[in-house]
This record gives sequence, structure tokens and C-alpha cells, in this order.
Amino acid sequence: MNINRNFLQLKDGYLFATVAQKTKAYAAAHPEKKVIRLSIGDVTRPLAPAVIRAMHAAADDMARKETFKGYGPDFGYAFLVDAIRAYYREKGVCLDYDEVFVSDGAKSDCGNILDIFGEDNLVLVPDPVYPVYVDTNLMAGRRIVYLNANEQNGFLPMPDPAVKADIVYLCSPNNPTGAAYTREQLSAWVSYARERGAVILYDAAYEFFVTDPACCRSIFEVEGAEECAIELCSLSKTAGFTGVRCGYTVVPKALVRGGVSLNKLWARRQSTKFNGVSYVTQCAAAAVFSEEGMRECRENIAYYRKNAACIAACLDSLGIWYTGGKNSPYLWMKCPQGMTSWEFFDRLLEEANVVGTPGSGFGRNGEGYFRLTAFGDAAETEEACRRMAAWLRK
Amino acid sequence: MNINRNFLQLKDGYLFATVAQKTKAYAAAHPEKKVIRLSIGDVTRPLAPAVIRAMHAAADDMARKETFKGYGPDFGYAFLVDAIRAYYREKGVCLDYDEVFVSDGAKSDCGNILDIFGEDNLVLVPDPVYPVYVDTNLMAGRRIVYLNANEQNGFLPMPDPAVKADIVYLCSPNNPTGAAYTREQLSAWVSYARERGAVILYDAAYEFFVTDPACCRSIFEVEGAEECAIELCSLSKTAGFTGVRCGYTVVPKALVRGGVSLNKLWARRQSTKFNGVSYVTQCAAAAVFSEEGMRECRENIAYYRKNAACIAACLDSLGIWYTGGKNSPYLWMKCPQGMTSWEFFDRLLEEANVVGTPGSGFGRNGEGYFRLTAFGDAAETEEACRRMAAWLRK
Repeated sequence: MNINRNFLQLKDGYLFATVAQKTKAYAAAHPEKKVIRLSIGDVTRPLAPAVIRAMHAAADDMARKETFKGYGPDFGYAFLVDAIRAYYREKGVCLDYDEVFVSDGAKSDCGNILDIFGEDNLVLVPDPVYPVYVDTNLMAGRRIVYLNANEQNGFLPMPDPAVKADIVYLCSPNNPTGAAYTREQLSAWVSYARERGAVILYDAAYEFFVTDPACCRSIFEVEGAEECAIELCSLSKTAGFTGVRCGYTVVPKALVRGGVSLNKLWARRQSTKFNGVSYVTQCAAAAVFSEEGMRECRENIAYYRKNAACIAACLDSLGIWYTGGKNSPYLWMKCPQGMTSWEFFDRLLEEANVVGTPGSGFGRNGEGYFRLTAFGDAAETEEACRRMAAWLRK
Repeated sequence: MNINRNFLQLKDGYLFATVAQKTKAYAAAHPEKKVIRLSIGDVTRPLAPAVIRAMHAAADDMARKETFKGYGPDFGYAFLVDAIRAYYREKGVCLDYDEVFVSDGAKSDCGNILDIFGEDNLVLVPDPVYPVYVDTNLMAGRRIVYLNANEQNGFLPMPDPAVKADIVYLCSPNNPTGAAYTREQLSAWVSYARERGAVILYDAAYEFFVTDPACCRSIFEVEGAEECAIELCSLSKTAGFTGVRCGYTVVPKALVRGGVSLNKLWARRQSTKFNGVSYVTQCAAAAVFSEEGMRECRENIAYYRKNAACIAACLDSLGIWYTGGKNSPYLWMKCPQGMTSWEFFDRLLEEANVVGTPGSGFGRNGEGYFRLTAFGDAAETEEACRRMAAWLRK
């Protein structure tokens, strides 16, 4: 009996645990201070009323023999798959019915999609990065090369023809930097992938935050992407589904490698190792794409966007360099006065009683940077900005 | 770019598709006949009222900012984990809090658990078998040896010391045969695994059907199993959750191989590639374990059990050899008159307008056998038995 020894290469992720522990210790030592968290990577607004109504109706379906639902289709009910296809058509992207795979979330798919690839592929991962890209590949023993995102490229690194990658991770709008590729920039990545026969794993979890018409909401808006990309998306941020768990992955039928359809491979993977998403969840997800659901979700996003604008205005007034905050709920700021990420974390907590996330926790290139998020309460976000500005102006 | 070429070794599963297609063709050609399906592997009774109430209450929680739930704990909410632990205590099994992992279903876990094992392990799989055990291992390129289940051993094969397996699949009560190991038989498997350092993957999805006190409802009822077994379980059959999606996997902390805790490996796998189960689903699952929920679920199981008894009585009266039907919703009958599985399927459909599942679809040793299930409507099940008996007595 041998365990998978690749697991022993993984480092423990102490970032969020350390943030929580330091915050708790400070709050305990200073019970009179009101600590505000701009570190939240989770949504805080309740679900849209249209979504709640759909959940109740679906629960009632499960209560009666005539409308009860057992095993559903492995890749999602037609009513949801078609709603997702209609959503893509609005972005100018036409998807076939069997190119959409409904799942319990983008994180699951992001890990599980690797099952269909050989273990000898070279993987290109941006730095800083969502740690799941790295860890899931280390678990399978794949070699990883890093792509430097930094102030010079605005944390939007472009392809280097000298790097012979097989699998390329792109996340736009980005977590943690909030930076979003333009259509033109993505086009260069599509060209790179097509020339090399590489596959882009495109994480579009934050697409609903995009407002800039120069930026894409799907990589399939770029010509030729259907021959080189898989798109991972989710309702977590679009509709506040972090606790509901519903995502979807698009694997185009035109995506073929070594004469084999990756769409068919993923279908085989999912029908073997997955059994579909809760009927109640799928009804809730379909309600997101209804006219009313979309309007209500946009209102929630507008709330978060206002928080982002508030933080952005604060950083602008302080003359601090940052990315994000426009097409994203994240702001990625350069730590002032040459502080390291953790130095700034400690000082911000002590001086302004505000919590953020040290950029160094997302990779080597994150050192000296800091992530703030727009998912908090509006009044608290304003108060946090006032305190941070007052401290840094001292 | 290389795909995972192990996928090319997989055979397509035509079993249920062929059953559906033949049934459809017969019904179309004979619109006057009422075809009855005893082939259903899915539940048909609606969810328990206590479960429905919990779903509604949870949906309401998601509608208000004060009670809204975002990301939950990766391994399940405490209220559900503790309910599962209490359920195990009733079976005489004490589990630590961090030995229980809540998931979206046993099928997912059954596939995903293999991530923590090396690819060079030898896998022992019973024949006939739930096809997922085979396919998930083929996908990872593992070698499989088959364990012969047959009439001689009552479709409950015992360990052969000459077979040097590293991973052993056991499913009891079994799908497709309905046969259930006694505590004594499982004890022999635990001894085999401990002597060899093998790990048993124990599929307990049908445990709620066990009535025979000589049979186990958890492998952890057997002494020493905590050092050699992982148990996969689900609410799919217990509480009709096939369309709700909630399961749980128990990985004991005493299970260590090569100095590494498999509990820690699975925790790392799940926290990296999984993001927890829907809050609404977890509330529904917790309601299953409430006093009221358990009582209501037992009523549903009693309904299915009565169907099983009806089919068993029919087979007894015909003098047909079978396993299952007592601690299981499945009956695994020997095809009469030396027919092959598909011959019997065709004749049963034509002569009695009853649909079942050919045993040969579950493996080489399934040839000449046939699976009937107790998940249908009670009146239809009785009618199907009458027709089958009338035909075979002709």
C-alpha cells in the first residue's frame, strides 16, 4: 500500500489562519476597539428574493410523489443548462447544449478537471495566484513554472514564447489582484495556446464584475478560444452562492488534443466521479438567470461595487498604487513606505483597526502588496477607509 | 499537451442505456401494454416532511443578512457532523469530530478518495460490481484483480491470502446482489487487510436496509477496522436524497500508512479540491437524523422493504435461487431455464411486460443472473410479480 507521496510536497496554507489568529488576538487585547474586516473573500449580502422563491418551490416539489426528483442528469437539468446558454448568448457566445457542465462549484471543477490531463504536462501558473491552481497540480506530481505578475505589467503578465507550457492558468478579473485582461491581451494568450497546442484553464469566477467594454466576460468572446480553452465559472460571486454551491464549466467540442475530444473526456470524468447537483440548488441557479433574478443580483453587485469605489477613492487620495477595484471586488495595493505585506498588516490592524490580506500569502510576487475586498458592509467600508487615510496622513 | 491516456482504456457503459432503449422500443410497438419497471436503482418516495421543513427554514436563513451563510466549513457544519456521530453511536461506533467528512454524495467520494493513494497499488474489486469502482481506478492507471462472487459463496466472496491486494472494495449490503456480509465475515476481511497493510474502501450506502442483527451497519462495528478501513456512506437511499446530494465519508485517525495519516491526506484533498456542501442541503441532512426525521425515513424504507418481501415471496414460490431482498432493496435472481441475462430480460419484457436489469452488465460473474429492485410503486410491484409468476408457471 503506497500513499500518493506528492501530497507530502504540499505546504500548509497558513495565510488565512494567521490573519484570523492575529485579528482575534488583537481584538481580545483591545475589547474597546471596533475591528473592521476588509479581508473577506466571501459574499455577505443575502440571496436575491427570486432565488429564495425558487428554492422554496423546489423544496415543495421534493415533498410530493408526483413532482419528486431523484437522480438528475449528471451534467445539469436542461432548464439550467439552457439558462446558462442564454446568458452566454448575451455575451455573444453560442454554446451547444453538451458544452456546458453544471457542478457544485468552480473550486471542485478547477481541481477535478486535471483528471483528464496527463501528468507529464508543464503547467504555467501566474504569481501571485489562487493557491488551488498550484496545490492541485502538485498533488498530481506535475511540474509548475511561474509567470511573473508585477507592477511593471500591471499584474497582467503576457505570454513568453520561450516558455513551453502545456496547461496555462488565467484568472480574469483576477483573484487576488483584481486586474482584468482586455480582449486584446486575451487574444495574445489564445494565439500562444493555439501555436503550442496548450490548453488555457480560464477562471471566470468574477466575470459579473466586469464593466469595462474592453474586457471580456468570457474567454470565448475571443476568436479561436474554443480550440484552446476551458472556462470555469460559478454563481458564488455573481449571485452570492458561496454557501449554495453551484458552478459550471464550459468545455468546447472544438477542443481536441491528440485526436481526443476533451469535452468527451470531461463528460466521462463527471459521469464516473460525480452525480449531479442538488435539484433545489439548480432551481435556485436557474432563477439567477431570470430577468428578475438578474436585476436583483445586479443590485447586490452594485452594492459591492460602491464599496470598491470607496476604497479606490481612498487609495487615489493617498497616492497609493493599486490594481483592481473597477472590474473586480478586489483591490491590490502597494504597501506604503516600503513595508512588507505582513508589516503593513500589523500596522494597519494596530493603527486603524482594519484587517486586510497580506499579498505575500499569494506568492513570491505578492510581497510588498496587500489585498482589500469590497464584500463588507458599506458603512464599515467607509469607516475603514477614513481610518486608514487618517493613519497614513499622520 | 498530453491527455490522460488511461481514459482510452475505459469501456462505455451501455447497460442502462440498452435497457432504456429496449424498453422504449417495446412500449412503442405495444402501446396497449402497461410496462412495469423493476429496474429502478433510484428512490421514488418523496422526502420526509421533517426534511422539507428544514429545507424551507434554511432557505429563509439565506434570505436575511443576519442569518445568511456564505462559505461553510470544508468538511461540513458542526450541527450535521455531530448528528452523524450520534447516528454512529447508536451503532456502537464512536467517531471523533474530525473523522467525519460531509460531501455531495458517496459517488463523488468513491472516485475522489483515490487521489490520496499511489498509482502503483493493486486493487481488488468484486465481480459483479458497481462499475464506478473499476472505472475510477482505470482512469488512474491502476491494476485491478477481480474477486469472484458467485452462487457457491452466496455472492459474498471471502479473502484469499494468495491475492496481494493493497486496496479492497467491499459493498455491503451489496449493489447489485443485495447480499450482506455478517460481522464474522467482515472480521475476516479486516484481518486480511491488517495483515497485509491493505486499505478497505467500504461502501455502506445501503446500511439503513440492514435488519439482520448478524450483519453490520458500519464496518467500524468490527474491531480493528479503524486501522484498515474507510467508510463511504450517503443519505441517497437512507432518506431519498438521490436528488439532494449529501453523503459522508469516515476516515479514522488510526488509519496510517507509511507513517502518514490518511485522515490528514483526505482532509488536504477535500480542502483543496472541494468547497463544502450547500447549507440548505446540510440542514435537510441534519433533519434526517432528528427523531422525527428518522421515524419518517424508516416508514419510507418499510414501504420499499415490503416491495422486496413481495418479490422475494414470488421467487420463493417459483423455486428460483436469489440473494438479497432481506437487508437490501435489491434482489439478485438466477435466470430460470438456463437463460442468459439478456435472454431473460427480453423474455420477461415480452411475456410479462416487466423490466429488470441484466446481471451480465455488472461483470462476467453476473451472466445468468438478473437484478430486480424494490424502489417502485407497491401496487405495480405486486402486479409485476403476479405477471412474472404466471408466465414462468406456464
